[in-house]
Amino acid sequence: MGIIFDKEKEVIEPKPNNTDTSEDVEDSGRGHNNIDNNMRGSTPVDPWGSGLGESDVKPVGKRIRTVAMRLGEKSEEIIVLGTELAVKLYSLAPSHSTSFSIEKTDNVTLRFNKGESDSNEIPGSGMSGSMFSRDAVVYISIATVSNMWNDSQVKFEFKAANGEVAGESLLLLTSIALSLDADINRNGSVEETFEVDKSRWTWGPNGQGAIILVNCDNESVRADGERDTEDLWRNGKDDLLDMSMLVINFRGPNLEESGLPRDYRLRLHTSVETSTKVGIYSLEGTPFWDSKRQVIGKKRKQVEISFQKLNLLRDGQVRFAVEGIQYPDYDFDGIVPIHLSLFQVEDDVQLPIFKDTVTFRVSPWIMTPNNLKPKEVFVCEMRSQKSRNFVENLRELTKEVGVNLTVVKPGHNRGDRWMQDEIEFGYSEAPHKYMPVVLDSPRDRGLTNYPIFSLLGKDFGYVTRETYLEEPNSLDSFGNLEVSPPVKVNGVSFPFGKILIGGTLPGAFNERRMLKVIRNFLSAQKVQPLVELFSDWLTVGHIDEFMTFVPTNDKKSFKLLMASPDCCYSILKKLNREGHGELVLFEGKKSDADGLVNAERTVKDLLRDTDLDKYNKTKQRYLDWNRDTLKRELGLTEEDVIDVPALFHTVDGTGADAIFPGMVNMLVLGNHLGIPKPFGPKIQGICQFESYMRDQLEPLGVHCHFINDWESYHVLLGEIHCGTNTRREPFAYKWWNMEF
Amino acid sequence: MGIIFDKEKEVIEPKPNNTDTSEDVEDSGRGHNNIDNNMRGSTPVDPWGSGLGESDVKPVGKRIRTVAMRLGEKSEEIIVLGTELAVKLYSLAPSHSTSFSIEKTDNVTLRFNKGESDSNEIPGSGMSGSMFSRDAVVYISIATVSNMWNDSQVKFEFKAANGEVAGESLLLLTSIALSLDADINRNGSVEETFEVDKSRWTWGPNGQGAIILVNCDNESVRADGERDTEDLWRNGKDDLLDMSMLVINFRGPNLEESGLPRDYRLRLHTSVETSTKVGIYSLEGTPFWDSKRQVIGKKRKQVEISFQKLNLLRDGQVRFAVEGIQYPDYDFDGIVPIHLSLFQVEDDVQLPIFKDTVTFRVSPWIMTPNNLKPKEVFVCEMRSQKSRNFVENLRELTKEVGVNLTVVKPGHNRGDRWMQDEIEFGYSEAPHKYMPVVLDSPRDRGLTNYPIFSLLGKDFGYVTRETYLEEPNSLDSFGNLEVSPPVKVNGVSFPFGKILIGGTLPGAFNERRMLKVIRNFLSAQKVQPLVELFSDWLTVGHIDEFMTFVPTNDKKSFKLLMASPDCCYSILKKLNREGHGELVLFEGKKSDADGLVNAERTVKDLLRDTDLDKYNKTKQRYLDWNRDTLKRELGLTEEDVIDVPALFHTVDGTGADAIFPGMVNMLVLGNHLGIPKPFGPKIQGICQFESYMRDQLEPLGVHCHFINDWESYHVLLGEIHCGTNTRREPFAYKWWNMEF
Repeated sequence: MGIIFDKEKEVIEPKPNNTDTSEDVEDSGRGHNNIDNNMRGSTPVDPWGSGLGESDVKPVGKRIRTVAMRLGEKSEEIIVLGTELAVKLYSLAPSHSTSFSIEKTDNVTLRFNKGESDSNEIPGSGMSGSMFSRDAVVYISIATVSNMWNDSQVKFEFKAANGEVAGESLLLLTSIALSLDADINRNGSVEETFEVDKSRWTWGPNGQGAIILVNCDNESVRADGERDTEDLWRNGKDDLLDMSMLVINFRGPNLEESGLPRDYRLRLHTSVETSTKVGIYSLEGTPFWDSKRQVIGKKRKQVEISFQKLNLLRDGQVRFAVEGIQYPDYDFDGIVPIHLSLFQVEDDVQLPIFKDTVTFRVSPWIMTPNNLKPKEVFVCEMRSQKSRNFVENLRELTKEVGVNLTVVKPGHNRGDRWMQDEIEFGYSEAPHKYMPVVLDSPRDRGLTNYPIFSLLGKDFGYVTRETYLEEPNSLDSFGNLEVSPPVKVNGVSFPFGKILIGGTLPGAFNERRMLKVIRNFLSAQKVQPLVELFSDWLTVGHIDEFMTFVPTNDKKSFKLLMASPDCCYSILKKLNREGHGELVLFEGKKSDADGLVNAERTVKDLLRDTDLDKYNKTKQRYLDWNRDTLKRELGLTEEDVIDVPALFHTVDGTGADAIFPGMVNMLVLGNHLGIPKPFGPKIQGICQFESYMRDQLEPLGVHCHFINDWESYHVLLGEIHCGTNTRREPFAYKWWNMEF
Repeated sequence: MGIIFDKEKEVIEPKPNNTDTSEDVEDSGRGHNNIDNNMRGSTPVDPWGSGLGESDVKPVGKRIRTVAMRLGEKSEEIIVLGTELAVKLYSLAPSHSTSFSIEKTDNVTLRFNKGESDSNEIPGSGMSGSMFSRDAVVYISIATVSNMWNDSQVKFEFKAANGEVAGESLLLLTSIALSLDADINRNGSVEETFEVDKSRWTWGPNGQGAIILVNCDNESVRADGERDTEDLWRNGKDDLLDMSMLVINFRGPNLEESGLPRDYRLRLHTSVETSTKVGIYSLEGTPFWDSKRQVIGKKRKQVEISFQKLNLLRDGQVRFAVEGIQYPDYDFDGIVPIHLSLFQVEDDVQLPIFKDTVTFRVSPWIMTPNNLKPKEVFVCEMRSQKSRNFVENLRELTKEVGVNLTVVKPGHNRGDRWMQDEIEFGYSEAPHKYMPVVLDSPRDRGLTNYPIFSLLGKDFGYVTRETYLEEPNSLDSFGNLEVSPPVKVNGVSFPFGKILIGGTLPGAFNERRMLKVIRNFLSAQKVQPLVELFSDWLTVGHIDEFMTFVPTNDKKSFKLLMASPDCCYSILKKLNREGHGELVLFEGKKSDADGLVNAERTVKDLLRDTDLDKYNKTKQRYLDWNRDTLKRELGLTEEDVIDVPALFHTVDGTGADAIFPGMVNMLVLGNHLGIPKPFGPKIQGICQFESYMRDQLEPLGVHCHFINDWESYHVLLGEIHCGTNTRREPFAYKWWNMEF
């Protein structure tokens, strides 16, 4: 059995666990020694049992604590289940003794270190020996919890050569069960553990270590636009479900009884650094703490647990909920260790006699590539009939595909139609919880408030990166942030693909790049390595202007589509050669004063434009540089790439813009593509660019839907992809199963 | 053959390499294709050959660059040896062509990607085919360097179904050899490489990646106390020998000839971050640069290499020397990538058509444990006869052991006798160079200027960590910084041991700890993990007050010695029981007004002191906590620890001090120990504490020398170890062979 949060009540309840092995443990007849199985199993009716027998979490052996004893004296010690006390026999024994005997209560197990002494273990009673070496040590362990103080004993007796008793010492023992537990085997529930190194966090299907989410959604009833990470309170049961369980398991007599020789203190604590990365809440409420307020967080790095109150709790469990406060970043690797220490107080020094550490890792923020199933498409409707027409066309497509369409009306989009650029949808995940999380671009135009006021909410998280050191530029818009499908490169798998951003060329300086704070954030997520492409040659400078990924039904399951002037010229020359030189491109379109709209033009006329040819030859070189880089970084072959006809020109003499709607700048919804209508030359009413696209893609099981975006996006230097955004299903694969 | 720095001249020379395999390569008959062997071997008389055949540096395959061609046009391209040019045949071919043929000069190798085309490779001439699929690509490589521009050609011809020529294109090729090379196989010399991923740096005996030293010694004739890292100049040939070689290997025609269709630029460059971690100097001098000034460093992150001048150089090699500027730290992992890029310039865009990256790692700073051979002992002489006596005793010991003794006279030590506390000796190492480096403590007392003015010098480095955020305390003295011998813990080897420092207990706050800047520095060195012990209970608070390591002749080869009141009481009680209760400890010593000196006292009297007994029982618990921690962290058994008699008392009611000279606070010189004379109870003139020590250590091949330090150190709360320091031989094991 394990424990999980109850989804209905603001409490936690035991959860049946099908793989409970506690009975098997009893069957094995290990009796008091069954803690060797790394789980509590001291009583057959133990309701907590174990989920650990099935995991690969390895025991690290008992922790040893040396206890100080003196001849002729009585000592009292606490022993924690799963640990050993060490008594240095040679230090305790009188110098003229030649033999010793040790008696013990039944529940005590003794172990004698090797060395030169001939010792005998006498099961059930004790051990004795005739002499002992310099380094003789007796190790003491107990497998059951004491019912009362000092109910276990070990008695040491030393005899001189003449048979007289040379000295004796008595060790009175109180055994307690104490552990700090979390979902270290990642099965969604918490098990009590012994002798396991819970401080290690390891990757992979055989890895171990608990996981927390950054609690960046908003379940506060008080504040709009404020994330749950920003307050020091927990906001009802829904907020609790975002968090991970942390449990102190304690059984044993009250350690605060009066008359005890020493004081004991039990504390949950973190380092100063960690305390800024985490919020911990108690689920116990009074008599412990104000249960809604952080017990550990940026204002408190430790909390004391009262034994008096501990003994009042059901099963001696103190239950906490843990939230992440920050995503991994350049200065934070996502690792969050939490410690539980039992201190023995003497002379104002609090000596830790037992320490248990649980290490959490903060879930990364994960991007969703085009091959994941779409759940919701977002688009802005502007105050124009053309925009409304576009939205209607999009509605038809989403209806056909069966995806929800969310239309952001003029009042909310505040004149900003670039839905792709303001946000990037992603998610975080823990074994107990999936949370979609939107990354908000530092690009702050009309849509700037949309993510925080309209997307952030219950179970919908929000994260952003901003800086006062640099000014955002066009490359910080998230049309410039994409992610590949899963790839394998030189034998190494990237099950979440690689993140792609646009920037400048290696070795170039003082050019436009994405802000360092964003690049740092993306890199630090680790599960999707970052690849920087060359997009600065474009006026807008976004990689979605020249590339996309389309899911296909062939073996590789996707194609990389790349804009290609070479491909476009090849089609046009073929048409010309075949006698179609008088066909018209961009039919009915007219130049405007700014030259942004491209007028109707014949194939022949366009092919005669040597300046255009030369200009596009250069752009093809930049595209080929990106193409070579993508093939190398994603392990793609030539067969994995489809060239898409495109032509570029420049208006201001610096940056390049698409002459006709960039078809790669498409909306990908499963095997349905919403492609900007290219207005290419028509034969018998069929656009030859469209027909090229259908020829390439339809054999791969992909359906092409050409949508007119000329007036609503193209003339403003964007296309359908720039004007939409898509929330997708998460990967089925779990990020913690990656191997590094 | 490889190249190394010439130790005599300020230049570099080719060095014969015994493992030269270039002849073998020729024997294999690979001819022009022998670059597959990842080395230059294009001519039988090639003087550079390879040292790489013997290493585990794996080829990563040829990098591919797509080149843009147009039908009916002549293109000119540069091809770098070890790379391939890709021509998209389907993009180049006229649409009505049905077959193609390719002719080429002899030195060109063609490869056709798979796909549906039936193509034939025709050795020596070219290839042809009858049709080609959408993704047909021809890959072109050349294995020899061009003697002149455009001396290689590939001609593409396309034919229509009727047999007429449908179109043709000509590709004129100039092949060059270009690589950035360093000692990536760590054999002390630099080899030219092809098709190897030199950007990877990996640990282990089969690892790859070059190494640099932090150039923190001082070979400047101008400045005293200034490290070579602090200037932007190189300081003569000695300074050069501290650096690592970086070589641009270039062969081919001049790329700056007039009349070429494009401009080319060759640049060595780093990121902004890396440029602050490294200094790069040219060894070529004029006509290149001022050879003494950094060409890359914190003021310059790139440098242009002129082809005109390149062709003037012997063998087309531009040689650089690289120095590290910073040790690894919390914000720097020691990894330093340097790039060489060849840019093709067109329309003001510099497109990198070839990039080679060499990654260096900065050598960590490594501490030297007691089991390493001592080279030099340092001690301060004070203005007193007792100090002079102590120094004389020490001189005898070092003479016997055969180690140099350096005595810092009163004028230089400025009244500060604590030689251990001001500095820690360590070293850094690269395959070509070993450099001792002193770590200077932020503790700034009388000896503060000693390390920078008296130790720092030619081939003797200096590093320190300071902060304005925290005030140093006694725990920042380096009596509180030690390192264990090599250990194995739970199957994991630590061939350089672990670093040990003293601090406070886990879970305690606002107590004394070593400064975070020092802890960060030590952790970041990585090869010696950091373990924090509990030393704050002592007035001075240094771990050398209660522990040391002694090399022994048994299997484990060392013992951990730990101060133990239990052990002391055990000896005293034995004496008392055997009728020696009237023996005198601390004979002739008197209390002074401050109570710092402990008066003569009998065994019986001391045993009657119940307050002292109680006090030491508590201290034994702290020591046992450290003992348990050390055993766990260093993988030690009880047999690996020797208890050393010690007693503690408190004068001010807070911190603990040793009552009699702390014997663990010793000077370890091989198997000779300089131990503080304990002034214990004597039987027949033999001190029983000394005799206990001899009994424990002499069977292990260790010689004990007891030296009186009572007045010169003990009464001032230190002992021999505190008052001395030892420079030792480095480990034979190389740090880059560690595996992580």
